[in-house]
Amino acid sequence: MRNLSLGSLILLLLPLSLWAQDTLRLSAPSENLQASFYLDTQGKPSYSLQYKEIPVLQPSSLGLALVDDEDLLAGFQLLNHTHTTEDSYWEPVWGEYARIRNRYQELLVELAQPNTGRKLNIRFRLFDEGLAFRYEFPKQEQLTYFILQEEHSQFHLAEDYKAFWLPGDYDTNEYPISSSLLSEIPQAMEAATIPIHAQSPIRSQLAVQTPLMLKGTTNGLYINLHEAALIDYPAMQLNLDAENFRLESHLVPDAIGNKGYLQTPAQSPWRTLIVADDARQILAANRMILNLNEPHVLEDVSWIKPMKYIGIWWEYFVAGKSTWAYSDTTNVKLSDDFSTFRPNGRHGATAENVRRHVDFAAEYGFDAVLVEGWNIGWEDWFGKWKEEVFDFVTPYPDFDVEALNAYAASKGVKLMMHHETSGAITNYERRLDRAFAFMEKHGYNSVKTGYVGKLIPRGEHHDGQLAVNHFIHVARRAADYKIMINSHEATRPTGLHRTYPNWLAQESARGTEFEAFGGLAPNHTTILPFTRLMGGPMDYTPGIFQTDLSYYGTGSQQLVQTTLAKQLAYYVTLYSPLQMAADLPENYLRFPDAFQFIRDVAVDWEDTYILEAEPGEYVSIGRKAKGQAAWFIGAITNENSRTTVLDLDFLPEGKTFEATLYGDAADASWDKNPQAYVIETRTVRRGDRLEHYLAPGGGLAIHIR
Amino acid sequence: MRNLSLGSLILLLLPLSLWAQDTLRLSAPSENLQASFYLDTQGKPSYSLQYKEIPVLQPSSLGLALVDDEDLLAGFQLLNHTHTTEDSYWEPVWGEYARIRNRYQELLVELAQPNTGRKLNIRFRLFDEGLAFRYEFPKQEQLTYFILQEEHSQFHLAEDYKAFWLPGDYDTNEYPISSSLLSEIPQAMEAATIPIHAQSPIRSQLAVQTPLMLKGTTNGLYINLHEAALIDYPAMQLNLDAENFRLESHLVPDAIGNKGYLQTPAQSPWRTLIVADDARQILAANRMILNLNEPHVLEDVSWIKPMKYIGIWWEYFVAGKSTWAYSDTTNVKLSDDFSTFRPNGRHGATAENVRRHVDFAAEYGFDAVLVEGWNIGWEDWFGKWKEEVFDFVTPYPDFDVEALNAYAASKGVKLMMHHETSGAITNYERRLDRAFAFMEKHGYNSVKTGYVGKLIPRGEHHDGQLAVNHFIHVARRAADYKIMINSHEATRPTGLHRTYPNWLAQESARGTEFEAFGGLAPNHTTILPFTRLMGGPMDYTPGIFQTDLSYYGTGSQQLVQTTLAKQLAYYVTLYSPLQMAADLPENYLRFPDAFQFIRDVAVDWEDTYILEAEPGEYVSIGRKAKGQAAWFIGAITNENSRTTVLDLDFLPEGKTFEATLYGDAADASWDKNPQAYVIETRTVRRGDRLEHYLAPGGGLAIHIR
Repeated sequence: MRNLSLGSLILLLLPLSLWAQDTLRLSAPSENLQASFYLDTQGKPSYSLQYKEIPVLQPSSLGLALVDDEDLLAGFQLLNHTHTTEDSYWEPVWGEYARIRNRYQELLVELAQPNTGRKLNIRFRLFDEGLAFRYEFPKQEQLTYFILQEEHSQFHLAEDYKAFWLPGDYDTNEYPISSSLLSEIPQAMEAATIPIHAQSPIRSQLAVQTPLMLKGTTNGLYINLHEAALIDYPAMQLNLDAENFRLESHLVPDAIGNKGYLQTPAQSPWRTLIVADDARQILAANRMILNLNEPHVLEDVSWIKPMKYIGIWWEYFVAGKSTWAYSDTTNVKLSDDFSTFRPNGRHGATAENVRRHVDFAAEYGFDAVLVEGWNIGWEDWFGKWKEEVFDFVTPYPDFDVEALNAYAASKGVKLMMHHETSGAITNYERRLDRAFAFMEKHGYNSVKTGYVGKLIPRGEHHDGQLAVNHFIHVARRAADYKIMINSHEATRPTGLHRTYPNWLAQESARGTEFEAFGGLAPNHTTILPFTRLMGGPMDYTPGIFQTDLSYYGTGSQQLVQTTLAKQLAYYVTLYSPLQMAADLPENYLRFPDAFQFIRDVAVDWEDTYILEAEPGEYVSIGRKAKGQAAWFIGAITNENSRTTVLDLDFLPEGKTFEATLYGDAADASWDKNPQAYVIETRTVRRGDRLEHYLAPGGGLAIHIR
Repeated sequence: MRNLSLGSLILLLLPLSLWAQDTLRLSAPSENLQASFYLDTQGKPSYSLQYKEIPVLQPSSLGLALVDDEDLLAGFQLLNHTHTTEDSYWEPVWGEYARIRNRYQELLVELAQPNTGRKLNIRFRLFDEGLAFRYEFPKQEQLTYFILQEEHSQFHLAEDYKAFWLPGDYDTNEYPISSSLLSEIPQAMEAATIPIHAQSPIRSQLAVQTPLMLKGTTNGLYINLHEAALIDYPAMQLNLDAENFRLESHLVPDAIGNKGYLQTPAQSPWRTLIVADDARQILAANRMILNLNEPHVLEDVSWIKPMKYIGIWWEYFVAGKSTWAYSDTTNVKLSDDFSTFRPNGRHGATAENVRRHVDFAAEYGFDAVLVEGWNIGWEDWFGKWKEEVFDFVTPYPDFDVEALNAYAASKGVKLMMHHETSGAITNYERRLDRAFAFMEKHGYNSVKTGYVGKLIPRGEHHDGQLAVNHFIHVARRAADYKIMINSHEATRPTGLHRTYPNWLAQESARGTEFEAFGGLAPNHTTILPFTRLMGGPMDYTPGIFQTDLSYYGTGSQQLVQTTLAKQLAYYVTLYSPLQMAADLPENYLRFPDAFQFIRDVAVDWEDTYILEAEPGEYVSIGRKAKGQAAWFIGAITNENSRTTVLDLDFLPEGKTFEATLYGDAADASWDKNPQAYVIETRTVRRGDRLEHYLAPGGGLAIHIR
């Protein structure tokens, strides 16, 4: 115990004296975490948590309010409780680890509400990494179909924390990440809630999103608050009582304000609190979220392959020369004959451009080429709240689906399909089987989906129960066709890629595209692993070599706020089984030596080593390529230069290896000299401590073999 | 002109003096109807209508209010106007007539709103049968995507009328039909709004539904107010100002209160006012609604066939012996293994029962057997607002899809599929291709769809734009698989069966099922042709021979409120290309001579003759079978006995024919002696006047050959 103030000691001890006699206690396997559960005098469920005797959560109440029905908040009696232990291993289809240990102590609390005859269970799992709990609604006569008005799960912190947060919002996770004390959030909220298309900030309460990363100011703790296995339930946001440091669940409503429609047997997602006194352990503990998800049930997963890809994409943002749309006609309909439109001469998804990308992918070892803008409808797809923007099966007149897929196949490359839905879930679902059958027929095996805009059904939200179910529906349907999914603007992940391993990656955060409009703060990617990535892989689309966008002569003065070397490091620090080399092919050819790292880096891993980590400051991660004697390290810093110190304890004993380092030059910086990198080769062995300079906004990528 | 009071003459003349100079006038081809259009001093569009110099509509304003945009209500200038004339013929795929004349005078009014730069057209078509108009939103820069807050189309009647009306409701058309003066509706509304499952009565305004049938109390006029070609727009209800006899459009809102999302070029449905001084002309004028719909675009319609069917259906309502559900288990999920449930022994859709019905259909010449309750999910499908009640592809353990379809095929009979959606449009759309592919694979060529319950997406309504589009989507998808649709609980029809001829019939009103719970008033079916059927065929499911339900010994004392003979007459008076013989097969075998009429009656017609008609009192219709020298007549009365007088002017000259009459016996009545019928044969010829007694709640069916 360190830095534990007298005040927090009192906070810790005080509630204990009020507890009823039947407090149930649960210890993590290594006993670093202790949780307690009790019913208060009104029969209200409460729990608390401490870490190595530091209070993490003061007694916090649990329960749910229902629509047109008695609440499940109080009046409970303890029926039964069961302690169990789990310690097992499993192997993901792909991931950061080839094998994952699932080890926890479980407490199942069975409650009865005598005045209604209903039962409610709460299941707690205490891992060494943190606490998880969920509500379980057993099959029972007195509770069959019910509607959630709100979940009232409290997380009553024992003191103020520095928080890495996004404004609460029902539709978007694409805010810049704010950093402040919890107590400062009320003042900071308005400025943090920047305009974003199709946003629905929570105005009724002070609320933030999860994953929420917290850093103790005095107690040395790091806490990560999120959820796992979000299925058939709305996403959870968190109301904040900033004076009492109390967070409380806030579910995303549907079009008429209800929060969830459930049928017993049912359960909530897991609410997860990962706790550590070393930030590195937080990153390593994203496995806890995976452990809380169900195994997949696919018979055959041989078709699911991590991959690297390039795409016709970044040129839409920066080059100013090309567009998704084939013409400059506006106010178009799917029923229009697009071949009668006058081509604007700037269409990106032309046969010629696709062939050029396929050639590049084939020559440099990429698995796939994403082609956005191949299909009709882009002329005014944006911001219209329009249901039938796209049909997913009709190419523009200058895109020959059959010929281009045949060409790609002849080169051993796949085209990656693109399904922008414009937020029209209804339209996509009714066309989904046909869209996937079209892909199957033409040889596509992966699709990037997009949900830009206000959802249809109108009034529904990207993070509501309907949308949550939609994204899972798409993943399941895709599996029927052996199609891999990369979803953008979907509900942020909660470890569901364990259950649906063809759902390779998601965006669901502020990614590289924002480097073209306003830029991403240099500390952004030092926080993302602690927030967005805790739930699953992100299609961040790294690899921008030409970071000064004035280069294109389009009038943009925008700088991508990293050095080139930092972009390389992202391939290791920002985990995804689907990694894009997002820059234009011609830019890679200008820096072939640096490009070599992107060509070499693996996308599937046997093991992962969190070497250094501090949210908002730096992240250094090493990984062993799956099935290869090759290791990769990425190290990044925020706006400040630093010396990264990398302990190579993970290398096998007794051998020496060649390490190629792709680092910032001494005079590099994201804003002044981003393309100044140095490549050097060293011989390394286990136990070496490798130190290297990281420039402001810089990074280091290492390939060891 | 008859019965025209001085008061209404003044009402007619007064507004004329206020009109701007540029009043545009339009006459029906035969000049019986005169319409006028003008812009008032605020640039508000107005129109009026008169019939043989009787004022039908006083000046009534037109326009639309938009969400977050300037309204399209006033400030208009007349840009241009065009008069055109149409006189042509077309042939429906099936129908009441083999050939339909489309003859009207058209006035296209092109308006501009200088302060917004927007254009709005109003297109009027004046037929001899009535007036139709619609809004057209031309493609233009200043109006592309827009949201309707409300349509404000007024129908300002010149006096009080007797109305045949349903309470305004966003979700159901299954109210009993009320009859009262318009001025009496305020007092009558509460009693008329009886409880119906999943109803959404309009409480904010006094409103009624369309088709609204009106009968002049002094002027001798009959008016029918409805709409035609309802596509991509919400259904119209009518607000009523009962003091001033002014009706005004009230569109059905979506989940968040908006009324329609449009993109130019777009148009509203046609608003139709059919006007006559003889009620028979109203019924004949349902062709006007068809004329206002677009022709179909199917290349092949050979697979679309009117048909007669029986079904496993009525036994669920009356016999008390069978159920849709396979078991009495409750709180089930699609993921459950239904074969583990204990069969309740009363499941209707058993192999044995299906075979029995197939045998009956084959022996007595029916085309198909509807089987409800064949698929898993019925255990608690009702009233749960549950999304995934049915999957449309999984039979109950006792229903062998393959064997039963093979058996039916061997007998030359089709099984009719049943897709109850429980109101979950989302669930149905995402499964639709698979559901239809399943039907195609197993040999089904028609499906009865159902939408019982509150819709999902939650907050949407059966008569909103989303649902309107859904029903059309289903019809179009079905055509891809050569499947015919019979939709229940869908938005009431507006003549779309011309455009989608595989959409054979709909329920969308109070049909035979209500004879099992409370009964249908004896006048109900004398009004339906003037209301519900104006828009299209109804799957009324007639043919109940065993009208006293106490017969089944299940405790029901319910009487079907017709005589047996009236049930026969329905096959002619209640037009549908899809006619059910709804009673249990064994009941038909008890009355084989009467059953002969159902076996003989045609379901597709060359011509139709409205012989007698008065809403609420009686309807007598003759029809010539398509491609046969056979005529059928149905005559019905309300609770009062009457003598029907049928002029056989429609028979060909110079021949004699044998007429078989199926009529009420002298001592018959719906409540005391419903099964007392007499069958007689007469020789008839053109010009004969055939008179026959109709008992209270009785009818007469005639087969002439």
